[in-house]
This record gives sequence, structure tokens and C-alpha cells, in this order.
Amino acid sequence: MKAARLHAYEFQGWHPRPGDRPLVTEEVPEPQLMGHHDVIVRIAGAGLCRTDLHIIEGIWKDITQRTLPYTLGHENAGYVEDVGDAVTMVQRGDAVICHPLASCGYCEACRRGEDMYCTASYFPGLSADGGFAEYLRTSDRAMVKLAEGIDPIELAPYADAGITAYRAAKKAARVLRPGDWAAVIGVGGLGHIGLQCLHVLSPASVIAVDASESARELARTLGAEAVVSGSERVEEVKEKTGGGCQVVMDFVGELGAEAHSIQMLRQGGTHIVIGYGGTTRVPTIDIIFSEIAIVGSLVGNYTDLSELMKLNEQGRVRLHARRYPLDEINQAISDLDQRKISGRGVLVPA
Amino acid sequence: MKAARLHAYEFQGWHPRPGDRPLVTEEVPEPQLMGHHDVIVRIAGAGLCRTDLHIIEGIWKDITQRTLPYTLGHENAGYVEDVGDAVTMVQRGDAVICHPLASCGYCEACRRGEDMYCTASYFPGLSADGGFAEYLRTSDRAMVKLAEGIDPIELAPYADAGITAYRAAKKAARVLRPGDWAAVIGVGGLGHIGLQCLHVLSPASVIAVDASESARELARTLGAEAVVSGSERVEEVKEKTGGGCQVVMDFVGELGAEAHSIQMLRQGGTHIVIGYGGTTRVPTIDIIFSEIAIVGSLVGNYTDLSELMKLNEQGRVRLHARRYPLDEINQAISDLDQRKISGRGVLVPA
Amino acid sequence: MKAARLHAYEFQGWHPRPGDRPLVTEEVPEPQLMGHHDVIVRIAGAGLCRTDLHIIEGIWKDITQRTLPYTLGHENAGYVEDVGDAVTMVQRGDAVICHPLASCGYCEACRRGEDMYCTASYFPGLSADGGFAEYLRTSDRAMVKLAEGIDPIELAPYADAGITAYRAAKKAARVLRPGDWAAVIGVGGLGHIGLQCLHVLSPASVIAVDASESARELARTLGAEAVVSGSERVEEVKEKTGGGCQVVMDFVGELGAEAHSIQMLRQGGTHIVIGYGGTTRVPTIDIIFSEIAIVGSLVGNYTDLSELMKLNEQGRVRLHARRYPLDEINQAISDLDQRKISGRGVLVPA
Amino acid sequence: MKAARLHAYEFQGWHPRPGDRPLVTEEVPEPQLMGHHDVIVRIAGAGLCRTDLHIIEGIWKDITQRTLPYTLGHENAGYVEDVGDAVTMVQRGDAVICHPLASCGYCEACRRGEDMYCTASYFPGLSADGGFAEYLRTSDRAMVKLAEGIDPIELAPYADAGITAYRAAKKAARVLRPGDWAAVIGVGGLGHIGLQCLHVLSPASVIAVDASESARELARTLGAEAVVSGSERVEEVKEKTGGGCQVVMDFVGELGAEAHSIQMLRQGGTHIVIGYGGTTRVPTIDIIFSEIAIVGSLVGNYTDLSELMKLNEQGRVRLHARRYPLDEINQAISDLDQRKISGRGVLVPA
Repeated sequence: MKAARLHAYEFQGWHPRPGDRPLVTEEVPEPQLMGHHDVIVRIAGAGLCRTDLHIIEGIWKDITQRTLPYTLGHENAGYVEDVGDAVTMVQRGDAVICHPLASCGYCEACRRGEDMYCTASYFPGLSADGGFAEYLRTSDRAMVKLAEGIDPIELAPYADAGITAYRAAKKAARVLRPGDWAAVIGVGGLGHIGLQCLHVLSPASVIAVDASESARELARTLGAEAVVSGSERVEEVKEKTGGGCQVVMDFVGELGAEAHSIQMLRQGGTHIVIGYGGTTRVPTIDIIFSEIAIVGSLVGNYTDLSELMKLNEQGRVRLHARRYPLDEINQAISDLDQRKISGRGVLVPA
Repeated sequence: MKAARLHAYEFQGWHPRPGDRPLVTEEVPEPQLMGHHDVIVRIAGAGLCRTDLHIIEGIWKDITQRTLPYTLGHENAGYVEDVGDAVTMVQRGDAVICHPLASCGYCEACRRGEDMYCTASYFPGLSADGGFAEYLRTSDRAMVKLAEGIDPIELAPYADAGITAYRAAKKAARVLRPGDWAAVIGVGGLGHIGLQCLHVLSPASVIAVDASESARELARTLGAEAVVSGSERVEEVKEKTGGGCQVVMDFVGELGAEAHSIQMLRQGGTHIVIGYGGTTRVPTIDIIFSEIAIVGSLVGNYTDLSELMKLNEQGRVRLHARRYPLDEINQAISDLDQRKISGRGVLVPA
Repeated sequence: MKAARLHAYEFQGWHPRPGDRPLVTEEVPEPQLMGHHDVIVRIAGAGLCRTDLHIIEGIWKDITQRTLPYTLGHENAGYVEDVGDAVTMVQRGDAVICHPLASCGYCEACRRGEDMYCTASYFPGLSADGGFAEYLRTSDRAMVKLAEGIDPIELAPYADAGITAYRAAKKAARVLRPGDWAAVIGVGGLGHIGLQCLHVLSPASVIAVDASESARELARTLGAEAVVSGSERVEEVKEKTGGGCQVVMDFVGELGAEAHSIQMLRQGGTHIVIGYGGTTRVPTIDIIFSEIAIVGSLVGNYTDLSELMKLNEQGRVRLHARRYPLDEINQAISDLDQRKISGRGVLVPA
Repeated sequence: MKAARLHAYEFQGWHPRPGDRPLVTEEVPEPQLMGHHDVIVRIAGAGLCRTDLHIIEGIWKDITQRTLPYTLGHENAGYVEDVGDAVTMVQRGDAVICHPLASCGYCEACRRGEDMYCTASYFPGLSADGGFAEYLRTSDRAMVKLAEGIDPIELAPYADAGITAYRAAKKAARVLRPGDWAAVIGVGGLGHIGLQCLHVLSPASVIAVDASESARELARTLGAEAVVSGSERVEEVKEKTGGGCQVVMDFVGELGAEAHSIQMLRQGGTHIVIGYGGTTRVPTIDIIFSEIAIVGSLVGNYTDLSELMKLNEQGRVRLHARRYPLDEINQAISDLDQRKISGRGVLVPA
């Protein structure tokens, strides 16, 4: 089958230049069933994520300790092709979206429904071969069956970008009340979903912050109650929200946003960290005086994905995606790096 | 009446030297009723707090903007001496402990029971004359009546140290389950109360961390399930807790503890910031990967104090205190600075 | 001033017949300031509530122990006319809506923000003279100031019907997730607000249940995802919700609805009791097997009312009301009894 | 192998008379592995439960629809004897306690950790052959491994009685604060564990209510802060608790306790229903006026059992049990029926 594989790291700070082919699309053997609960998925669409760029750079090298070459792609959706002998929950032909982690189901975390903390899992596209290919091997624990009539292709980015935004919005919603303001810093692939989830899950008004005019336009279309043109405009945010935000969801996490986010908070406010790259620095006296909370959010669990699929079915959350054929993956990577993709890029193998 | 007043700041980094008299005990007029809800309290005991040292240093100068001289002392307990014409909840002779803030009762925060966020309050001992004196003026909103037979003198430190530790322990208890570990960093005036509150409010085991042998001994006496001799011993904490803590309560907040605290956390853990002085620095990727929360805790509200008084009545929380006559306040300050006071120092005017 | 007063109870089961004048509109002295925190409100509008009918019947006689005659009316909005000497939060001319209870502000419940549990309160229109009059005496603790440009007349029913529905919807929202169903039994004065609040506060779909075609029509207009023509149609509710509701909000509480509500629940579901009159009867084995919760909801606290006013300002909740001049109050009572009022009736003294 | 099996129902209201042999201990084939995740457990101890008496009576006949004869026993602990080919979490020789339900792991409920709501489970001892035998077949999803040195025999009752009490106490703890009172109605097999769990999980004081002097004595030994000799003594409970309980845990659920429990509540209180048999009857107006919650609690999930095992390891919860050889099961049944067993009876096959 065809797969887009990484043969060499380009190292930290790397950006694709014209002619670069960081991933090689080549013929590889199809994945085989190896365990009782394995599932082979025929990929309909696979989302391209900023984390893929970071993997190519080499930032994740020491964490994943993968031997090269291997296939990237951790936002996967498609059709069940084959199943292991103990699989009962899906069968050949089912349309599915894949939770990114293949978890064990038996550790303490799995038994609490906190799949992301599984102590015996693998992560296709990160620690194992992923979905930039015609077929993917994962576990039946990752399968979320799609409702009748739902096309898997353009859903793929929900598998990671979607649940990451959704889980963070759930954390936000727990503390938001009528009259409150929640800021969405960065209205990109994740942020535009987070904004919609906030409106569905909470009664708060949303102030969207992004330096890009097209991102702000998207935010307005999606119903943001206020829009600001950059995270450094802390005073403007404070003014528009009557004194600061009860929640700031930071989808950027670097380039200053991680500091501005905290400055935008009202006393007792919550800063939810989703984007990464920078460093949070706060004097302990400020943490206490403002009695703020700085809360990380890590992807999402199976239940998060399955709830998000219900919102998608109901038309209450919509994903903006752009398709690329699998063998144009290096173009897609370049476009993502240059922020030319509005919403999310999806690779289509067929 | 006699009052111990600050006449000049000593500026940041100041420590009392032999012969220093940072506070002057002198005769001043007694406070008078000024508002419908004012209460004059005859002080039985007033706790000495590390914040008093910081006020003397001058750190709070710009925040409080007080003209000098004025009377310090924000942990106050005693007897009601006189009340304003709209006061009904206490009467002359009642034994009381004073919530540190004189709040308005009408702003949004007050109506939610979040007294510390009151937008129209004053803070005796910080922004107004405090309790290192024979009499104190505050509001009836600050009055917690003591149960029959409870002596106010040694309770005074509950008014600030106590509720600060208690509120933080409540935040901890919300996420702690059987088998979990909570670390208490710093078993001093606040920490030794926090440790007891954790045991009362949660099923977790407590690991106490302090460089002082006498503090560790106190922790053992109070039932800590494990004890470690310094916050830099992160590996020892991880080993004793089988992989890290679900909660770390940092009562130090400086000198490295603010960083070690975060390293002691298990995935999904919560770091509660109570002590201050240092700066929290965490790469956003670590906040996300470990999905941790860094949570400030600011004093406590009226309900916190009134719940803590019930635990005190029931003998489930005990305060370790040492008394000083009011005119030995400079000795007490020096002892506190040199960490010679076990538990908390209390000034006694009479 | 003019006031509509009750001179005699008509006793249980009473319904107004043609010519009945259960309330007498007559001249009485204007209320006077009596306490430091009293406020005299010039009534703009006062909502008529089914509880007024129950008071007239005599059901509340033993609870309130009021000497007759007295003025009914517990849903009040208008303008501040005069204030006691300790009042600072409002001044003459302010447009306000009145929380129904005049609470003390000092008891344990008040300090937690749970105004309805106040142990030293009075309830104008129930235990004291109410708002079916030109002027009303209440406390400054009951004052919610209206935003600029908000007309108090038609807001009045929010003061009781509104917050009762809102508080119940908040309880519901705490357990509702995407894909869940919440039933609203009875789309009348309270139910039509409850339905809107559910949509604002939760991601659930709403199934509205009412025997009246006009009520169902209102539910559809307000966006109910499904509509059923009577609470006895339990099977239809189960079918439309794919097996039952996660939450049932019962705004009727009698005539069978109290039993049907429980039958509509899914395992683990929550039944919120708002309407009253009937008796809940459930075998304990069913409570356990279905692991259901039956949860009462009592009016709402100050914060509930102030949050609801924000939703009203934002246009996210709208009240359907019909005005009557104060001296047509007996007509309004008859219309309410015969269910001729769509939404809520409001008495206008001027 | 030997197994104690039910050959015929005795029908409702049945009580064992001298000479009765409701269960027949006889030779039956050992259970065989049938599925990938099956586990055969060699029984060390199996708890006897009041539900077993109800099964014998025939009350459960229509719910379980089991063909007779079959083996009872749903509180099981022992050693892993054999495992299916997809089992990895336990191996032969492991000491285990069995969660009562063999759940699927894949339905929506299982993915949330709510094992009891599993839509594709079986319940050994209720709907399948149970543990009054030398060997038991169940699923690896039911396995909780015991810590080194923990003897499974006397733990068995934790499997059902234990987690039922524990889960209910967790629900109670969520609403209990310092100074609050929780009543435990019925200090028997479940109640004596519930009492201990309340002390571990919450800061409340416990008032134990039981007509039996030995049960009250047990409650005192376990640290109950007050003791009352019967649920009909509502006034005594109110007096001792200063006005009623914030939580009432009803482990009886019949014979009047289900009504008295509600009368013992304070405004805003929570009634947790654990015992069954009677019918809860409350006028809706009372549910609203007192704003109470009536909350069912159903066994417990896997996480509940695993947390409870940690408390047992730590010695913070202790089970009172009495052993019977398996072939004396009818004696044990008679003793249970006549309330001659203090704590819980455990059958020992070997």
C-alpha cells in the first residue's frame, strides 16, 4: 500500500523550503492483525496536525524513540477492514473515527475512563505507524462508530484537534456562568472548534483573539461576541469584557500568548493551556493574589470523542477542512507551516 | 490604648538585627464606631504572620498605600466591646474571632459567599489599623462567634493562617481519593494546620516535606504517613509515593519549593500554591503532557473560617502557638524571622 | 395608596366563580421605612402566580400565620422610592427587580449565598404585605439593579417564576452531556423559561410535554427538539429519546405528572421536582435499581436572579407576559385559574 | 466440584424453618473457559447476602429468568485458576476479589467507568452460576488484584456489601462539611462499612440508628459520634444533631425507615437509599419546601472496589465476618434470616 513516511529528522527550528520532501510517499506492506483486539482501518481521511511538523523537526524523537522510517498521521477516520478474533464492537465495513490512542482497557486510568493516562498504550502516528497511508492498525478500544450517513473523510481532524478543543471547553464550561467571558486565543484548527464548543456547553460570551483577519472573520461567523486582533492587546480584552475574562483558553501557548493569557484573567479566573511551545512564568504572589488556576488539557478521552461526534451529528459543531491527495502531503505540510490552510488539512489516500 | 505601630518601612530584603525596633508600642486613641455595622473588638490575642515581616520590609507599600504610622495585626480574636446601630448578630461581651476582611456584603462576590473578592472592603492590619493593640475596629461581617468555653487568645492565628491552610486543603480534598498521596511542603504555621485538615477532609495519605527536624517531628506527631527532609528530594518523594503525588500543597512558594512541587506531581496532578516569594516557571508542553493544574489559594472566606472553628471545637484540628506580651512584639518578630517559633506566635495585649 | 388585599380565605379546592372578588382593591397607608436596610419600591409590575391562588384557597394559612387582611404579590419590579439609613447599594430612582425574600445576610445560609435558607427573613406577598400595590417595603438585600434601558414592568415574573425555573435548569445542566435528553413537563409560566434556560446552560436536547396545543406550539417556537402531548405518554417519550431522559424537569408535580416523570427516566437519571400538589411514590428497589435521584428545587437565590437578568439582557431568555391594570386583578385571577393566560400575568398599578 | 445450588423457589415471604435445606450442596462439573476474557477463580470465600434470601424467595425470578438449578453467591474472592487467551491482567495464582458484574468494557457506560450500567454484562450468582462453589467463571474485567499478604477469604463481602456501602458514602461525602451530621440507619453488614467510610471520606459526625443493642455497640466501637435506638426516634435524632441531618444513609429501606429517614433531614438535605423493600412516599410540596434530594445508590463500579481495597490495606476500614464451611450454607442462611450473624457471613468451600 502507499504510505507517507518519515526517513530523517530535520531538527529543531526546521521549516520546509521549496523542494523539500520531508515525508516520502512509498509502497509498504499492509499492516497485519497482531492481537486479539486489533482492527485494520481503511483510511478515508487523515488530518494533518502541527504536531506532525514538530515530529518532523525532531522534538518528539526522544519521547517516542521510534526507529525510522515510519508513517505519520494520528487523526484518522475510515472503514473497518479486518478485526482480531476477540473484537465484537465493530465489523468489516463500519464507518469509524479512531481515538488517537490504542489503550489497554485494564489499567486504573482506563477503568476510570481516563484513556489518555493509560499505562500500556501505543499512539499510531506518534509511537507506531499512523494513518498517512491506505491502511492503519489500531485497537478496537479506539473505535467510535459513526452514525448512519456520516462521511468519515472530513471528520478525521476531530480525532485529535477536535477532542482536544472539546475537552478544554468542557473544563472551561465547569466554571462559566451567565454574564461571564471566555477568551479563545488562536482561532485555528483547534480554536475554531473550541469556540463552538464553548457556545454549546456554557452560557458565557466568547471573545476571540487572533492576529489573522481571516481567523477573526471565521470567529465572527461562528458567533463570537467580541473579536480582538492579537493577544498583546490585553487592555482591549479587559475593556471589552468589563474587567477581564473568567476563562482564557490559550490555543497558542507560545510567542507571548502564554503570558498575555494570564494577564487577561479576572480574579479567580482559569487559564486553560492547550497550545504549546512557550514557558509559563508567574510570580507565586500573583497566582495567590488573583487566586487563578492554570490548567493543562491533554487531548481527550474516548467519551469526549463520542460526545463530540454527537454534537457533529446534530450540526452544532462544524469542522472547516481542506482536502489533499496523500501524495501531495509535502505541499500540505508547506501550506500548514505557512499558515495557508484555513481550518484543518486532511489527507485522502484514495 | 497601647498599639504596636509601623513608623517606617525597612525595605526589601530587610531582616531584624539585634536592637531593631521595627514596630513601636505606644499610646494611641481607641478606635471609634464610624459606621452602622462597625464593631469594636477588645483584642485577646493577635497572631504574628510572615506577611507582617513583608509589610515591614515594604513589599506591600504600593498595594496598600497606607500613610504611616499605623497598627499591624490581621489575625485577631477577642471580645465584642461595642457595636454600630445596625449590628444585630453580636453583642457586647461575645467572644469572637475576626475574619481578616471587613467585606461589604452586597457586591456580586459577597452574595456568592466569596468574601475575599469583595470590591468594597478594608483589611485591618494591612490597609487599616489592625489588632496589635488593645482594641480593633472592624465590621460585623467579620464576626465569627466562638462556641461556649472556647478561649479566643490562642485561636487568633486561625483567622488568617488557619483559613488559608483550610481553604487550600478543601481544594485538595476535591480531587483526592483513597490510595492517593498529598504532599505538604513546609510544616510551619500554615502547613501544620493544612496537614491536619487534609486528614480530616480527604482519604489521602500525607507526605510532609520540611528541612527542619522539629517541623518533621511535628508532622510525624500529627500523623503524616511519610516524611521527607527537603523539597529538593523529589526522587525520594516519588519513590515513597509510588510515582508521585496527586496533590502538592506548597506552603513555601519560594527558594526552589515552587519548582520541586511541580516535579513531585503525578500525571493529572494538582499543585496548590499557598506560600509566595518565588516564580513558577513551566514549559507549556509540560503543563499539557502531564495535564497538571497549578491552583492559587487566597486566604479563605467567612464560611471557611466558620467551618474551621467547628473542627477546632471538635478537637480535630489543633493549633500550636506561643504567646508574647504585646510590648515584646519586636522580640517575636525577630524570633519569627529566625524561625525560632514552633507553630505560630500570638501577641497578647493584656 | 391602592392595594389588592385578601380579606378571607376561600379554603382548599376553591376556584373563582363569575362575580367573585377574592382580592379587594382598596386604599391603604403607604409602607414606611422601619429598619436600617429597608427599601420602599414603587411597583412598576407585579407577577401573578399560581401560589397566589393557593394562598387565597388557604393552603398556606398555617405556614404563614398572617393576620388578614393583607396584600399579596411576591413577583415585584419597579423603582426605588426611599431607602433606610444604612442602604448604600441602591438609591432613589434606580430600576430594580426584587428577590422574593428579604433575607438577613448574616446567618450561615446567607453567608453561603443560599438566601432561601435564611433563618431570619420575611417574604413580602406571603408572610408580609406584597406588591399588588403602588408601593412595597422590602430589604436592600432583595435589590437586583436592572441594566440601563431595561423596563421593569414585564420583568416582574422573573422574580419568582423565572429564578425557580432557572435554578432548576442549573441543577439539570450539571448532569447533562451532549446527546442527552431533558424533558420539560408543563410549558407554562415556569416551564417556558426552564426550556430556554436548558438550551442556554446545557448541550442537551429538550423534549417538551404539555396537553395544551398552544403550550406545545410555544415550546416548538422556543426550539424544543421534540414535543409530546401529555405526561401519560411515557412510551412516546422513551421512543423519541431513544430509551428515556437523563433529566426530567417536572413543572406540574401533580395530576399524574409526578409519577410519569419518574417513568420517563433512563438508568442513572435525575428527576427535578418544581411543581407541587401531588405525592411522589416510588418503591425503594426502583430508586436503587435505576439509581435515580429525585431532587427538589426551591425558588432560587440572589445570584440565580442576577445571572438570569444577564441572560435577559443578552436576549437569550425571553418572558411571555400579559398585563392587567391592578384593579382588574380578580379578572386576572380568574383567567389564570382557567388557564387563559399564555406565559405569565402581570399587574400594573399605574 | 461441590456447589450449593437452588433447585426451587420458596416464594415471597418465605423464611427458613428448622430442617429446611433451600440450597443443595452437590457435585457439579467445574466451570470451563468459554470466552477470550474468561477467568476461572478458585473460591477462597463467598459472602452470604440478604439478596440471596430474596433470590431463594423468588422475588428475582422474573428479573433474572434463570433456569433452575443454579449456584448462588455473588460476593467472591479467591485465586486465579485459569484464564482465557486474551487475558493479560491476571495470571494463575493471583489472589483476587471479584467485582460482582462481568461487564463488556465497550459500551458507553463501561467507557465512562460506570460498570454497573453495562448493557452487555452477566452477574454471577444472580443471572449465572455464582461462587457458593469451589470454582467460579467470570471475566477479567471483574478482577481486582489483592496486595501482597492480603488473604482473600474474609474480604469476599467487600465485593458487594462493601462497595455498595462505599459508593453510597462517596455520594454522601460530596455534600458533607465540617459540623454536619450524617445518619446511618441500620448498622448491619453494609451499614457498619458505610459508617467507617463516612469517617474516612468526610468531616461529618455520624449518628448511628439501630434497634439492636449489639449493632449500636458496634457503631460506638467504630466511632459513631451519637447513637439512637430506632429510626422512629426522629425527634431524638433532630435533637442530638441540632436540628436534623445533612445526609441520611438508609441501609434498611423498609419497615418505616424509608419514611423516618426523610423526616430526619435538615433543609437542603440528602437522603441516600441503599436498603430496599419499602416504598418512598413524599408530597411534592415537601420535596420542594425542604429542597431535599432522594438519591439511589446501586452497588458500585470497579474503581469503587479498587479504592475500597486500598482503604482495607491501610486498615482504615475493617470488615466483621463469620466463616461457615460451604456445606453448612443452610445453617448460615437460617442464622442470617434470624439476624444471628454480626457483620457478614462468609462461606468457605475448602
